[in-house]
Amino acid sequence: MAKIKKKKVQRPKALPPKGFRDYFGGDVTGRGEMLRQITDVYYRYGFDPLETPAVETVEALGKFLPDVDRPNEGVFAWQDEDDAWMALRYDMTAPLARVFAQFRNDLPTPYRRYAMGPVWRNEKPGPGRYRQFYQCDADTVGSANVAADAEICAMLSDTLETVGIPRGDYIVRVNNRKVLNGVLEAVGLPADDTATRDAVLRTIDKFDKVGVAGVRELLGKGRLDASGAYIDGVGLSNDQAEPVLAFLVSKADDTAKTLANLRDAVGGSAAGLQGIEDLEKIGDLLTAQGYGADRIVIDPSVVRGLGYYTGPVYEAELTFEILDDKGRKRQFGSVAGGGRYDDLVKRFTGQEVPATGVSIGVDRLLAALREKGRIGTTAKGPVVVTVMDRDRMADYQTMVAELRNAGIRAEIYLGNPKNFGNQLKYADKRASPVAVIEGGDEKERGVVQIKDLALGARLSAEIETTEEWKAQPAQMEIKRGDLVAEVRKMIARAEG
Amino acid sequence: MAKIKKKKVQRPKALPPKGFRDYFGGDVTGRGEMLRQITDVYYRYGFDPLETPAVETVEALGKFLPDVDRPNEGVFAWQDEDDAWMALRYDMTAPLARVFAQFRNDLPTPYRRYAMGPVWRNEKPGPGRYRQFYQCDADTVGSANVAADAEICAMLSDTLETVGIPRGDYIVRVNNRKVLNGVLEAVGLPADDTATRDAVLRTIDKFDKVGVAGVRELLGKGRLDASGAYIDGVGLSNDQAEPVLAFLVSKADDTAKTLANLRDAVGGSAAGLQGIEDLEKIGDLLTAQGYGADRIVIDPSVVRGLGYYTGPVYEAELTFEILDDKGRKRQFGSVAGGGRYDDLVKRFTGQEVPATGVSIGVDRLLAALREKGRIGTTAKGPVVVTVMDRDRMADYQTMVAELRNAGIRAEIYLGNPKNFGNQLKYADKRASPVAVIEGGDEKERGVVQIKDLALGARLSAEIETTEEWKAQPAQMEIKRGDLVAEVRKMIARAEG
Repeated sequence: MAKIKKKKVQRPKALPPKGFRDYFGGDVTGRGEMLRQITDVYYRYGFDPLETPAVETVEALGKFLPDVDRPNEGVFAWQDEDDAWMALRYDMTAPLARVFAQFRNDLPTPYRRYAMGPVWRNEKPGPGRYRQFYQCDADTVGSANVAADAEICAMLSDTLETVGIPRGDYIVRVNNRKVLNGVLEAVGLPADDTATRDAVLRTIDKFDKVGVAGVRELLGKGRLDASGAYIDGVGLSNDQAEPVLAFLVSKADDTAKTLANLRDAVGGSAAGLQGIEDLEKIGDLLTAQGYGADRIVIDPSVVRGLGYYTGPVYEAELTFEILDDKGRKRQFGSVAGGGRYDDLVKRFTGQEVPATGVSIGVDRLLAALREKGRIGTTAKGPVVVTVMDRDRMADYQTMVAELRNAGIRAEIYLGNPKNFGNQLKYADKRASPVAVIEGGDEKERGVVQIKDLALGARLSAEIETTEEWKAQPAQMEIKRGDLVAEVRKMIARAEG
Repeated sequence: MAKIKKKKVQRPKALPPKGFRDYFGGDVTGRGEMLRQITDVYYRYGFDPLETPAVETVEALGKFLPDVDRPNEGVFAWQDEDDAWMALRYDMTAPLARVFAQFRNDLPTPYRRYAMGPVWRNEKPGPGRYRQFYQCDADTVGSANVAADAEICAMLSDTLETVGIPRGDYIVRVNNRKVLNGVLEAVGLPADDTATRDAVLRTIDKFDKVGVAGVRELLGKGRLDASGAYIDGVGLSNDQAEPVLAFLVSKADDTAKTLANLRDAVGGSAAGLQGIEDLEKIGDLLTAQGYGADRIVIDPSVVRGLGYYTGPVYEAELTFEILDDKGRKRQFGSVAGGGRYDDLVKRFTGQEVPATGVSIGVDRLLAALREKGRIGTTAKGPVVVTVMDRDRMADYQTMVAELRNAGIRAEIYLGNPKNFGNQLKYADKRASPVAVIEGGDEKERGVVQIKDLALGARLSAEIETTEEWKAQPAQMEIKRGDLVAEVRKMIARAEG
């Protein structure tokens, strides 16, 4: 036989691609439960589910990402065998536009739809920034009525309370892009100077961080930031910047005053006045339904950075405080946002179709619920039936089946049963509440041992003598026939 | 101003890529409900959820697709900015192997996990064959005990009954790849002649279609198929083929006889006898738990085409009849399958890790449930509150809010309210059970009209005179204060 030179085996790395991650146990069920609660609210509001594929043609997605502020913006794209370019969807809105254009004759108009699922961004991953993440959207396509915007704001408020954010811990802020457009028109900024307008939007978006004085500098010549770097300004004159600042700080104690301040800021601009009228309508509709300023407010400082919004914009912020990386208190911040966009379907059909919608940042909302203790971080483990006698697997399987049929999560130990300590270590790793033990002796006497594993762990940390240990009820002998009833009691005790 | 030549606008096509599709309304909620039922069973059996990303490195996925029989096999793959190749997952098993290799020190062993979600195949699309579809898997990694295989068979049976396939309408068939290996060993086919062994597997897989005589020809020299084409055979001699055929038809009325037949077929092969012993253990475990031959049977004709199975294999078939495309009766067929595979993790770590698992074909099972009338094909529409007076949107929104708060799916009409007929057409398209109408006159009198839309549609087809029409209760006037109670009654009547 010829001697074969042994090659070094090249093994694949057991890692996901950079920027992707796995979710285990409670993280999966917790998110699933939250998404179910959200979509239940959406459904009750008359929104219909839509599930589009993960993959779209690049031409249908368009060449742009909505948020032009991100570095390395982009999609994951590749060529089909027919040389056609395909890409993973980067949001839920672009596929909705494609679907509405495709099925516009069959869909009801207005079309209310919700969608949830992963989206993908080909961006540089960073801490907490992944290239696949969940979105949960609701949009109304085909209604120009601002009642559609008001409805989504109300629904957003209901949704947050349904998933477990108490009233007072969140606020939905509403503004209207038309009002800002009116202000810019009034100060003589041409409507087609989108670069300057976008720069103004991005500057206003920094209000939270840099305050009125900072925004004033950034709208004008620029400013030195905290690190000493000079940030170029938008280049507005003082006369142009002041009405923008007046607009920005026009939020007053009540809506009527806010609207009055806005009227001053827009001067005589017709677009601006129309925008204020829309806001007034939204406010009236929400007030009539009982959504007061403790839930939804009109706040001109909300502009949302995206260039494509054309009317009302809205954002849900969580107002409770958390500690940031450096141990400083800060508000949790935005978990959802959206607004009116009228141009997306036009790309396909040439017709302008009014639409408005919201997107919930699923991962941020989940993080908030964990922060509030509304979602357990650990899953409940199953009852583990241990294997004392490997020839009696059928006996143990029967116990497991009895427990399951009674609705109790349960499993048999399927590893090598030789070392009993390993079985208990396994039960521990599974976060199992109860272990069931039946040796030959117990079998003969018609009994089983059940062990409260959580209590056992606490006791073994506290108890010092063997006598104390024996006196403790962490393990008890029960009749075989009482298995289900006694295990259920022990679980209830462990949870109570 | 310079004259700009008008270019013809090139609009994107409003279509998904070939082989991809959208799911609307009831199709989304029906699948979601079924997946929830399946994963509830998996969870009760102690399986933990795992969600891996859609994207893996190509090296982690491996270069092969499991099912070598398909044309244009392949994955959707592309290069990262670092030139690393990434791809969409083609199943749930390859990512599981990667995860187990990556987290083996943190995960419990054995590790029971379930996963559900879309997978992608870069294949030629065809009628009913899509390039994105759902799988719902459960696997046990790290147990060599055939009790793990028995457990999955039992779980599969429970799952099918839970989603709505009655006992008697399905059967789980179990076999063991080792038995066939024993037969092939006994007839002198070398263990390393995987090409011939795979060809034998594929031939046995055709048993359903071509019968014993057909398999005999295909194991030997080949045969003429119905179209007149000659299909090459595997090339076994008669002496080699007969034991394979004996194996194939060894299923008897009871398990003991089946096992006796198998013992004859494997001759003295040690591997074969070991395989039969495993099957006996599986049979005993299932019998002890009450899973009789009406639910799970040992059936040597089940081999499953995939080369990578190393031990027990299992398949769930639906046995009720449906009409095929040509109107002929045939059994619905396979909806789930799986088996034991011991080599997948080895690619990463060099260590052999025993594993066994099942994959449910979600779309086929859904189709079966529709066939059995277990899943509604149409979603329940919302109550539609119509808009008679556009200045009173707040009144209508209040009605909608009352209905929703009572748990009734409801919405306001958000289109242009001018044409009332359009509002009723819209309600019709929404499959709305009830429309609510409140004009100025009703408002003054403190009443509203509610209209039973389903009944209205039936009546308008049957009724001929205006008098009859008026006498019918399809529309009724109720007190405004009774809105929720009366709408609830009308929906109950429509559903009852």
